Amino acid sequence: MTALVAVLMGSASDLPKIQPCIDTLKSLAIPVEVRIMSAHRTPDVVAAFASNAEKNGMEVIIAAAGGAAHLAGVVAAHTILPVIGIPVEGGALNGLDSLLSTVQMPGGIPVATVGIGSGGAMNAALLAAQIIARKDPAVRERFSADRAKRREKVIAADKEFTL
Amino acid sequence: MTALVAVLMGSASDLPKIQPCIDTLKSLAIPVEVRIMSAHRTPDVVAAFASNAEKNGMEVIIAAAGGAAHLAGVVAAHTILPVIGIPVEGGALNGLDSLLSTVQMPGGIPVATVGIGSGGAMNAALLAAQIIARKDPAVRERFSADRAKRREKVIAADKEFTL
Amino acid sequence: MTALVAVLMGSASDLPKIQPCIDTLKSLAIPVEVRIMSAHRTPDVVAAFASNAEKNGMEVIIAAAGGAAHLAGVVAAHTILPVIGIPVEGGALNGLDSLLSTVQMPGGIPVATVGIGSGGAMNAALLAAQIIARKDPAVRERFSADRAKRREKVIAADKEFTL
Amino acid sequence: MTALVAVLMGSASDLPKIQPCIDTLKSLAIPVEVRIMSAHRTPDVVAAFASNAEKNGMEVIIAAAGGAAHLAGVVAAHTILPVIGIPVEGGALNGLDSLLSTVQMPGGIPVATVGIGSGGAMNAALLAAQIIARKDPAVRERFSADRAKRREKVIAADKEFTL
Amino acid sequence: MTALVAVLMGSASDLPKIQPCIDTLKSLAIPVEVRIMSAHRTPDVVAAFASNAEKNGMEVIIAAAGGAAHLAGVVAAHTILPVIGIPVEGGALNGLDSLLSTVQMPGGIPVATVGIGSGGAMNAALLAAQIIARKDPAVRERFSADRAKRREKVIAADKEFTL
Amino acid sequence: MTALVAVLMGSASDLPKIQPCIDTLKSLAIPVEVRIMSAHRTPDVVAAFASNAEKNGMEVIIAAAGGAAHLAGVVAAHTILPVIGIPVEGGALNGLDSLLSTVQMPGGIPVATVGIGSGGAMNAALLAAQIIARKDPAVRERFSADRAKRREKVIAADKEFTL
Amino acid sequence: MTALVAVLMGSASDLPKIQPCIDTLKSLAIPVEVRIMSAHRTPDVVAAFASNAEKNGMEVIIAAAGGAAHLAGVVAAHTILPVIGIPVEGGALNGLDSLLSTVQMPGGIPVATVGIGSGGAMNAALLAAQIIARKDPAVRERFSADRAKRREKVIAADKEFTL
Amino acid sequence: MTALVAVLMGSASDLPKIQPCIDTLKSLAIPVEVRIMSAHRTPDVVAAFASNAEKNGMEVIIAAAGGAAHLAGVVAAHTILPVIGIPVEGGALNGLDSLLSTVQMPGGIPVATVGIGSGGAMNAALLAAQIIARKDPAVRERFSADRAKRREKVIAADKEFTL
Repeated sequence: MTALVAVLMGSASDLPKIQPCIDTLKSLAIPVEVRIMSAHRTPDVVAAFASNAEKNGMEVIIAAAGGAAHLAGVVAAHTILPVIGIPVEGGALNGLDSLLSTVQMPGGIPVATVGIGSGGAMNAALLAAQIIARKDPAVRERFSADRAKRREKVIAADKEFTL
Repeated sequence: MTALVAVLMGSASDLPKIQPCIDTLKSLAIPVEVRIMSAHRTPDVVAAFASNAEKNGMEVIIAAAGGAAHLAGVVAAHTILPVIGIPVEGGALNGLDSLLSTVQMPGGIPVATVGIGSGGAMNAALLAAQIIARKDPAVRERFSADRAKRREKVIAADKEFTL
Repeated sequence: MTALVAVLMGSASDLPKIQPCIDTLKSLAIPVEVRIMSAHRTPDVVAAFASNAEKNGMEVIIAAAGGAAHLAGVVAAHTILPVIGIPVEGGALNGLDSLLSTVQMPGGIPVATVGIGSGGAMNAALLAAQIIARKDPAVRERFSADRAKRREKVIAADKEFTL
Repeated sequence: MTALVAVLMGSASDLPKIQPCIDTLKSLAIPVEVRIMSAHRTPDVVAAFASNAEKNGMEVIIAAAGGAAHLAGVVAAHTILPVIGIPVEGGALNGLDSLLSTVQMPGGIPVATVGIGSGGAMNAALLAAQIIARKDPAVRERFSADRAKRREKVIAADKEFTL
Repeated sequence: MTALVAVLMGSASDLPKIQPCIDTLKSLAIPVEVRIMSAHRTPDVVAAFASNAEKNGMEVIIAAAGGAAHLAGVVAAHTILPVIGIPVEGGALNGLDSLLSTVQMPGGIPVATVGIGSGGAMNAALLAAQIIARKDPAVRERFSADRAKRREKVIAADKEFTL
Repeated sequence: MTALVAVLMGSASDLPKIQPCIDTLKSLAIPVEVRIMSAHRTPDVVAAFASNAEKNGMEVIIAAAGGAAHLAGVVAAHTILPVIGIPVEGGALNGLDSLLSTVQMPGGIPVATVGIGSGGAMNAALLAAQIIARKDPAVRERFSADRAKRREKVIAADKEFTL
Repeated sequence: MTALVAVLMGSASDLPKIQPCIDTLKSLAIPVEVRIMSAHRTPDVVAAFASNAEKNGMEVIIAAAGGAAHLAGVVAAHTILPVIGIPVEGGALNGLDSLLSTVQMPGGIPVATVGIGSGGAMNAALLAAQIIARKDPAVRERFSADRAKRREKVIAADKEFTL
Repeated sequence: MTALVAVLMGSASDLPKIQPCIDTLKSLAIPVEVRIMSAHRTPDVVAAFASNAEKNGMEVIIAAAGGAAHLAGVVAAHTILPVIGIPVEGGALNGLDSLLSTVQMPGGIPVATVGIGSGGAMNAALLAAQIIARKDPAVRERFSADRAKRREKVIAADKEFTL
């Protein structure tokens, strides 16, 4: 099945931090393509991938990077698809650098930025789902069910909780 | 015409900072509804608006707030539409507080965050357009044209430039 | 006995960080209700709880949250009771995000913010006690005794100390 | 009439930044005593004032300071009354230093901290009012009315707003 | 004369901040080519320029950008020439974002980063001169003279100085 | 022998972080008195100690504190002796809060601040020694010897070093 | 008269920011030598000055610098006199860089750091006076009088103050 | 063989953090001299080394330091060779202090700064190689091969990757 969402990262070592994103997309039955490519080491691969993503049937591109995180911005420069940036946690500045490098894009080329870390990785997937849900009622239903389940989990935790 | 995008702010005094967002949506001929409502002073208005936005025909909600910026997060809690957060510049910390309050959402409830300031406000509109473009070919065309124009402007500036 | 103080948190996983708050309230014999509810996943539960807290006999509400911490602010929007916010330590930014998201409230809706971490959690309880002590002489006495004990502990440590 | 709230600042030059606090207390008809005293230049005056505040009929002490802001913490060390700290905006670090110096109190001696700047100054007054309202129904009524007025102002701004 | 140094910026509006760089290169008689091109709006122009810079006779490329500053990193990805990044001052975070986006490059693709602001812009030119001086004795002489003049200026200021 | 330097800390738990300070003073044979007292829990003890320090023969007071570190500032308010502040490392903000709370003193009441952490603790002792050395030639000699030893250690490490 | 205190700065343009330091030393009748020398542009002048300061009769050296402020540290490396560092306000990071570059010295070579800005400049002079006062009773008297005057000023401001 | 690059550090304890720099230089067959010398403890050694580096055949000097990192700046003050600064990770502020102390140099004396941590250490070596490559075709070839290998590694990782 054609992937609707691409998840890009610069190095396989980032995979554990991105896993919540991939798992959430799968749990919503959204076909995903995961690729390793680097804005700095394979810039032509990134440019080619991003330039062709729309005509290859993609709807959203998610890019994860740490440090001077350029991957999401470079992807956004080559596509009109919505691009979601995950600032990867870690390094000396613990992701503050990746957050600022991802979110502070110049006027004209947005990157939809989520939070640093595993909550952010999960939210990138959910945001992609929300975008796809605008035209795919089945994804909309699955997203709604996921949202309801999260609500139920909090309510159950509250009920079960005893000091 | 039914608005496809809502632009929410907590106070009319934020309007000048949000104007690039509204202007950009208009330049893309995307019908927009601009509303003043506050996560803290009119929380029920926000909850009602967000809860009904999808069935009222909205596709994307943009929320702008400064300081301990809660508006985008509160809206996101009440809708399954994609929510875009603009961290408003200003105050003692100049928007770093609004950025962190907007982007660092817990896993489960994403807010698509753009940069602090006027570039961010413009990008919120463009991101909304990119989302709507996934199902509206006319918006897709206008977005593509806007992107091309931005490219031409840089090329022209380069050509005209003399030391 | 009717609880005078509510301690709210968004997830049971925050409990260890909030325990010093609960323990301190108990040591002061202030009846406490601990609840799990989320500004983002169960916003209606939060709104209902906060709206009814005063008529249910509460005097102070303490809310603990991390990241883009919205819980205290959302509670404060729905009650005229004093609301105390505990910025939960942790995450990539180690609580700086929770501090700013809790303390930088807009004019009109205060959140009484304490420090990040376990000292802050304990202080939230003591601040609640100080507020209740304004009308409850027994709590005032217990608070005074607690304060005196803390003083004695430092003096004893100084006495016992040898290089 | 005996003052219920003291507003302390280290220097008359801070007055313009604290004025919203004083104005808000007056608008709620809460008797206030405003004093200039310094944790560093007149520490004995501060200690004496704070030590006697409760028996002089005070209910809450508000202390405003900038830079390495010690005033609220020093006051809190000498009284069991609730102490509210306003981190004064300004200086090279624009109030981040005052915020951290005010809020990061050690376990045992809380300072209820509000935001940096004029919103924070107003909120200090409102928080004092919320505390006093726990035992003074007239203040409770005036606070409720103030809260309602803030709500109406947002709703009116929304109604009057046209693009 | 073939330019030895390229100075790139994303927008003509950055020119005033980059002027000290251009002026310093000229004062050292190093032929310079100044170009406007954007990592986000004209990524293919940047890629082509950087890819061809070495064979076009360039020795060093200087790239200036603000916010989520990607220009230097993208240039570095397409050339083996030394790339110097100037983090442009300004915006809500005043250049802290540009500094981190420029300097925190992943292992493998260095960007030689100078300070934020006009001192940094001047230093980018001097650093380029130091690099070129390694093989061009005339530039080495002019650089040495510039260094000596800076020294003399401080000594003269000290001599002329009276309280 | 009368202590020339007092080392104050708010809690015995800070001792390991202050040990390099005490050890360095001892290695320089400077008589030291170490005391546990708290600006917040035993403010009167601190005030009395600081007020009497000069007439008790002290020459310098060193105060170590973390978080909203007030100890050095409060001591400085009660003495004309030079006061050295050690910002204790630790807590959610890892000492940035203690640094700013210690160094950003208002005009009129200086605190000589050293770095965060164990290097800072050692340097507080050395700075005290430098001050005492201004009138005590024996301390001056021992300080000079310590300085020379540090120099020799680096030179030896360089000599012994092999890749 | 032989200067007891040297005030060093890297450029005459820093003079306005250092003036409160010079004025305070003069008001305490402490002979001062003000010099312009740069850790980077005239390093040998700095090394020679610092190396000879003690035998030239100096008691304390004050060094002011901004940005990557190295002057105080370089001076401290060449003398056993107490060295006081003033982090000069300004630049893109507004003095946070100068503060960290001045205070975070490695173990072995302390710099007594005061706050950023004009309060810090004044405090550098007062700290120098406190050090000199340890052996010069006349300076001790003048310092005490200055301290008392600051106290009186606050008390007078409090007395004169009316809402 | 005469070393073309010097790698300087203030203490042998920094060696593990600098190892990637040394290893990368060796892998490119660039002769390197590694030295331990301190801007603060052996300033004359540093001054002598830097002053003579060019005539001893050096082409580039790399200096690594943490905290108030002065080593690169002091070296740069004594040579016209390009100086590369590695901000060493660690300490309470985790390298943010070393980054700012290294990069924010005053106009006139540049330090080419790389990122904090091991990626930065590797990049310092690569940057040195890029500079030397401008006149040494063999280094240019080896650098190009290294760059290509990094590219191939990403492409291989992408190929091998399976979810």
